[in-house]
Amino acid sequence: MHLIALYEQTDMGDSDAGTVVAESGSSDISLAGSDPWRVSSRRLAGGVSEGVHVVELDNGHMSVSVLPTRGMGVWRANCEDIRLGWDSPVGRPVHPQYVNAAARNGLGWLDGFNELIARCGLAFNGPPGIDDGAKSPVESQLTLHGRIANIPAHSVEVLLDDSSEPGTIGVRGVVEEATLFGPRLRMTSTITTRCGSNSFTVSDEITNLGASSTELQLLYHTNIGPPLLGPRASVHCAANTVVPRDARAAEGIDTFSTYLGPTPGYAEQVYFFDLIPDAQNETFVLLKDADGERGVTLHFDRDQLPCFTLWKCTQPEADGYVTGLEPATNYPNFKSFEREQGRVVSLDPGETYHAEIRLQVQTSMKGITALQERISALQIRSGPDVRRQPTLPYCPAN
Amino acid sequence: MHLIALYEQTDMGDSDAGTVVAESGSSDISLAGSDPWRVSSRRLAGGVSEGVHVVELDNGHMSVSVLPTRGMGVWRANCEDIRLGWDSPVGRPVHPQYVNAAARNGLGWLDGFNELIARCGLAFNGPPGIDDGAKSPVESQLTLHGRIANIPAHSVEVLLDDSSEPGTIGVRGVVEEATLFGPRLRMTSTITTRCGSNSFTVSDEITNLGASSTELQLLYHTNIGPPLLGPRASVHCAANTVVPRDARAAEGIDTFSTYLGPTPGYAEQVYFFDLIPDAQNETFVLLKDADGERGVTLHFDRDQLPCFTLWKCTQPEADGYVTGLEPATNYPNFKSFEREQGRVVSLDPGETYHAEIRLQVQTSMKGITALQERISALQIRSGPDVRRQPTLPYCPAN
Amino acid sequence: MHLIALYEQTDMGDSDAGTVVAESGSSDISLAGSDPWRVSSRRLAGGVSEGVHVVELDNGHMSVSVLPTRGMGVWRANCEDIRLGWDSPVGRPVHPQYVNAAARNGLGWLDGFNELIARCGLAFNGPPGIDDGAKSPVESQLTLHGRIANIPAHSVEVLLDDSSEPGTIGVRGVVEEATLFGPRLRMTSTITTRCGSNSFTVSDEITNLGASSTELQLLYHTNIGPPLLGPRASVHCAANTVVPRDARAAEGIDTFSTYLGPTPGYAEQVYFFDLIPDAQNETFVLLKDADGERGVTLHFDRDQLPCFTLWKCTQPEADGYVTGLEPATNYPNFKSFEREQGRVVSLDPGETYHAEIRLQVQTSMKGITALQERISALQIRSGPDVRRQPTLPYCPAN
Repeated sequence: MHLIALYEQTDMGDSDAGTVVAESGSSDISLAGSDPWRVSSRRLAGGVSEGVHVVELDNGHMSVSVLPTRGMGVWRANCEDIRLGWDSPVGRPVHPQYVNAAARNGLGWLDGFNELIARCGLAFNGPPGIDDGAKSPVESQLTLHGRIANIPAHSVEVLLDDSSEPGTIGVRGVVEEATLFGPRLRMTSTITTRCGSNSFTVSDEITNLGASSTELQLLYHTNIGPPLLGPRASVHCAANTVVPRDARAAEGIDTFSTYLGPTPGYAEQVYFFDLIPDAQNETFVLLKDADGERGVTLHFDRDQLPCFTLWKCTQPEADGYVTGLEPATNYPNFKSFEREQGRVVSLDPGETYHAEIRLQVQTSMKGITALQERISALQIRSGPDVRRQPTLPYCPAN
Repeated sequence: MHLIALYEQTDMGDSDAGTVVAESGSSDISLAGSDPWRVSSRRLAGGVSEGVHVVELDNGHMSVSVLPTRGMGVWRANCEDIRLGWDSPVGRPVHPQYVNAAARNGLGWLDGFNELIARCGLAFNGPPGIDDGAKSPVESQLTLHGRIANIPAHSVEVLLDDSSEPGTIGVRGVVEEATLFGPRLRMTSTITTRCGSNSFTVSDEITNLGASSTELQLLYHTNIGPPLLGPRASVHCAANTVVPRDARAAEGIDTFSTYLGPTPGYAEQVYFFDLIPDAQNETFVLLKDADGERGVTLHFDRDQLPCFTLWKCTQPEADGYVTGLEPATNYPNFKSFEREQGRVVSLDPGETYHAEIRLQVQTSMKGITALQERISALQIRSGPDVRRQPTLPYCPAN
Repeated sequence: MHLIALYEQTDMGDSDAGTVVAESGSSDISLAGSDPWRVSSRRLAGGVSEGVHVVELDNGHMSVSVLPTRGMGVWRANCEDIRLGWDSPVGRPVHPQYVNAAARNGLGWLDGFNELIARCGLAFNGPPGIDDGAKSPVESQLTLHGRIANIPAHSVEVLLDDSSEPGTIGVRGVVEEATLFGPRLRMTSTITTRCGSNSFTVSDEITNLGASSTELQLLYHTNIGPPLLGPRASVHCAANTVVPRDARAAEGIDTFSTYLGPTPGYAEQVYFFDLIPDAQNETFVLLKDADGERGVTLHFDRDQLPCFTLWKCTQPEADGYVTGLEPATNYPNFKSFEREQGRVVSLDPGETYHAEIRLQVQTSMKGITALQERISALQIRSGPDVRRQPTLPYCPAN
């Protein structure tokens, strides 16, 4: 039997694939003190990935794969032997043409959900439904997690910054969520990583190009599976308050910070946090593995992203064993509830909202211990106020 | 900082882009008395424009950009310093894969709306809703303005006609709106411009390929923004009757023929016209700028397109400052209402409906004055019968 | 007038088009006793076919065109002067991006329906509606005939099997119907034809990749029009029972096995069969033309595909004159009814369901007579139990 492949496999692990846009040693651009690095660009072929554009930033120590076609989402990152990302039942990056957000009772977004970082927003970012407070009929039919993750970027550029040593490599793209008689929002997203480092940064500027004020909701659905997630892995942060979203989350309130292994029949549990920032308004969340030897931290500014949501979804690996760390402008309740609680951003005409998150891989027990000490220092009281039941204003109370 | 662009910008103003299909001087085909001219073809790259096909007809004096991918719509035209078109919040030509007509309460069509000429139809062309008079469940769920603008053309051909001097250049494409157990309509659209002229023509043949009679609705949503549209710009035509569509339009009935500048909070106003044709059944509508020095005329046959609608949408420029001149087979009321009024075309099996519109740029006050004199000559009575309120049979009365 | 075509016509009849992947005489691979043969691959251009991938298997006597882009459907087959397939009002292979299954009251699937073999499934395969028995909200909104026909295959490979004489050529592809919090099904479809033969085989392996058991519905919508279908053509099979689906089908129960010519106003008639297999569980259905000189047989395993449905749709040719031979795991009633009747397959985690159908062209009266004798031998009783009205458990009784 002879087999002749017509498409390349859309195996994202093959970092040799694609066209090199720029790299250390072979381009006109040198980034002092930064060897080796490489930025490559490719189009996936076959199945629902056909035409998906992938830009890979390899800083010599960490690689980050960005998907301009999926609203500048981040597909995966790798640092040493640690893969950041998860194994969704949706195996491959999905071209937006195959995602009908309005189908499946407004849950069609799930058909394309498998990234390390999927943005939710920009006009709305929570569950589907009819928003009675919408300004127009064009805006009222909300679909799960909004439109931005399924709008492709244009004006995509590779960035090479040699203004410091070591240099920084990155990719930028512009995503427009606009319609006549509706919101007109432009997001310029810049994803960068310093050569040789163990972190990368997502920095977004969202501008209201419309003539009147408009609403903005933004959430970074940051999803981690194995190897970091596993039984007895745990999550740590300095928090004023922790609130279970619903009765199902309330069941697990005593163990909200630790994870089960893959568990048949597990139904997702979601917790809302009011985090404590440092003097610069920065805060972070640490996910560490069971041994406390490896982890990842998610850093952000509490002024930009005041609401933090933890999604625990430790179902069997075949169904998608994952946890989500979700800094956001709001909690992912239905938009009208968030509006009532004053947590929907209003952007004036021409106004720009800036949000930034940084993901850093942790590879030493010593480093992780130091991070936990920083959390303890921020956590002035003995611990957060952990509510045992859904509580206003975080979510509708029971 | 170094920036390396991965996509070309989808800037439609760059007439040098693309592949030259044919041009004066360099091809085997010569069009006597017609220098210079050029027909070019290109695919846009990046964002929601990825893969959109643009055919540009440049007759040496006027250029017209046609979008086969968007149902043979006309993106823009330019003549001297006059741009025909408008600046929609939807900035770039949108590939139909990103338009879900059924989403957003049936208003998803607006996500792709930004052309100079967008056809509405073919089975239906008005607002969304459930058509109780539909022949089958496949046909009853109507979406705003129909399907044709989001179906790509096949068999696209460039036309070069040297049968007269100067010659004519053009593009033709075939768009099929068909489904099993539903209408089977084929539109062959031909868009042409005479070399050196200041006008172009859209000529459509729509054939019922099905075995039984079927309904047809067709409207040419012809949209003009600056520089022609501006404060004190005005619209002129010979009309038997003018009717405001609703209470909002009735508010402005005394000034229906003149335009405001960009106006915050302006809600659209729509007027229905019964136009007066000349002895050859031809009629036209003139839009002129405030100074009466520049304008555009839209010419058509009142037998083919008996209903004319004026859409005034002088909202702020950032939201899309625009007016629509809309000749059609019907008024864009809900289909069942138009059916009751006898304004839905019935096409027998094999029957073809022909419709044609011509857009002509006017660049002299003298020419514009002459056009207004022609209107006055047609307008035998002192003026049209202007109704102050919505009136049957034009629209549901209050 | 000069015409310059910008796209090739998407004429499927031009077997010279495309890239030859492998063929007799010119490749490294020889298939002994098999001359000539050829496997070619191409992408269609223009209109709704833009980007559709076609793999053509030409075994020297019969050619089969497979559409990986449309879930490994079979577009057409040709053997001598017999075309297998039909002329749908939807003229060209439709890229899934233009099919919104959820639109048109859940009947949007019809916008892309024109193949010889279109699979219906995998999670559901019947009419649209809300499935109250669905496990989750992601799964409850059913659309006509399911998703699989509009999901493109990846990992597409050409197969050349020289293990026997003559050899076999084929194409294989993998189609995944998966979502988070929903079914995760992977279909590996292999379509093969023996060199010089008059038949081809579709062999599908469908695996539940999820962590819990899931439901499977699979139907092979096999559609035949002229030249085999025509007035007085007839269908033959060994059956225990024949049941009309509804009152419309009951009207024609006395002539269920014969066909009218194209008939204006004809509404579809559907019959459900319980077929009689042979000792190896194999059964087949014969469609023969009016003269009994030409025909096609559809062979399958009654254990794999226990339910057979006959779709008679002898409407005028312009509307799609066609009959469907539909072996399936179930009858295409609404999923909840089929579940109640115990006809929905349950697949355990990791379990694979295998189904195979074979289409064989019959070109001699002698051969057709022999096939009818085989049917008579299986039909031990004088004839099937033909019910005059819709009957449980085949369908809801009147």
